[in-house]
Amino acid sequence: MAALLQIDFPFEGPWGDAMTEALSGLAADIASEEGLLWKIWTENPAERRAGGIYLFTDAENAARYAEKHGARLKGFGIDEIACRSFAVNPGLSAITRATL
Amino acid sequence: MAALLQIDFPFEGPWGDAMTEALSGLAADIASEEGLLWKIWTENPAERRAGGIYLFTDAENAARYAEKHGARLKGFGIDEIACRSFAVNPGLSAITRATL
Repeated sequence: MAALLQIDFPFEGPWGDAMTEALSGLAADIASEEGLLWKIWTENPAERRAGGIYLFTDAENAARYAEKHGARLKGFGIDEIACRSFAVNPGLSAITRATL
Repeated sequence: MAALLQIDFPFEGPWGDAMTEALSGLAADIASEEGLLWKIWTENPAERRAGGIYLFTDAENAARYAEKHGARLKGFGIDEIACRSFAVNPGLSAITRATL
């Protein structure tokens, strides 16, 4: 069953197009993660937080990635990582037009 | 610019198919919210949390909905609502196959 990760953390930028440019190599790497269906990259310059919403094919791949990404963020000096894992309710999500 | 809301809160069920059945009317109502592109419904029975990831056309509609939904959840007796708002980075999200 599909597994959703929501991750966000304190971030000091870059934002917007500069973020795209700075992190496109990382994004290409993340795109090849085993079991990743997609990731939406999130950013909030006003609150100085960024992160992502990830959909994985299964909970095992989501858990493995959460551990790997947490360690990578710590390597960037980012410690206060909010990470939550959920199953997706497909019936309700279909009613509200979600593409899973 | 598209605006993403991530919302989750303590929830005591129902879960899975029973959740779909119990909340399909609410989902149909949420589907008609102004500016809503889609909502993914999330559930974690082990941690007893549920919520959703929402994509709105713009930050104004996202903020209006966050206020309305927060009041609705409080009406259900749910007080500890985690709600964060983000912009989406479209360039990075495209690299990781997100459908916005």
